[in-house]
Amino acid sequence: MPPDTKITLMNKDATPADPILCAIRFDPDGLVPAIAQQHDTGEVLMMAWMNREAVLETLATQRVCYFSRSRNALWRKGETSGQFQHLKEMRLDCDGDTLLLLVHQDGVACHTGRRNCFFRSAKDGKLIEIAAPLISPEALYGRSHSHG
Amino acid sequence: MPPDTKITLMNKDATPADPILCAIRFDPDGLVPAIAQQHDTGEVLMMAWMNREAVLETLATQRVCYFSRSRNALWRKGETSGQFQHLKEMRLDCDGDTLLLLVHQDGVACHTGRRNCFFRSAKDGKLIEIAAPLISPEALYGRSHSHG
Repeated sequence: MPPDTKITLMNKDATPADPILCAIRFDPDGLVPAIAQQHDTGEVLMMAWMNREAVLETLATQRVCYFSRSRNALWRKGETSGQFQHLKEMRLDCDGDTLLLLVHQDGVACHTGRRNCFFRSAKDGKLIEIAAPLISPEALYGRSHSHG
Repeated sequence: MPPDTKITLMNKDATPADPILCAIRFDPDGLVPAIAQQHDTGEVLMMAWMNREAVLETLATQRVCYFSRSRNALWRKGETSGQFQHLKEMRLDCDGDTLLLLVHQDGVACHTGRRNCFFRSAKDGKLIEIAAPLISPEALYGRSHSHG
């Protein structure tokens, strides 16, 4: 991260991201759901959560950073797997309580090795898998992993 | 709602939707976020919440029904505005905690009269509007309205 980015993240009272943070209605846990969509194909890749810090870091670095509820920590998507999400645009909905991230996804978004996380479809009262992994989780992480 | 649909909704121990309900990880409030995407264009229309009953009703009727957190009641999308969402497919993500609804949206999805709810974009530290209403909220509802 370049030095000026760090300054932007630390100077929380006067960052250019403030009008955006102020418009976001974070939930009582300080989180907001963020939908990641591949910017050119429209594929919905995943949904995860962001806190204020994750929003600021994502805007400052243009690399998507979530907040992992299971690990209770910032989750820099791709840091372990190399499957980064490059932010093209961040949008906010009418109520201010959901983000839509238009991204370019390197490789696969899902920790199972599939391109997107929505690979189970309800058909005739059951769930069927509609996509196979493109890469094994072991190849992605070297071990069993949940992205929280 | 046809009579057989009612029976399906009431007979909760043996509905064909049960394997789907069992796979969904509802949050402590009994809710799961559901992303609505226009099935043919890929446009992300909105995000809202469902409880068990909303999932069952949506699958049974193929008309999207959410749960309104502000009104604490089922929210049959389009019931007031006529802007129904017709379910084409319901998908569940890898962790079971987010739904993706592929729908056909009648008219507009957003209570502001815009086609989708994500009409504010973060640019240079500010939010700018990138879409205008296609219809006035008054024409949709006859009064000021929030879709909760």
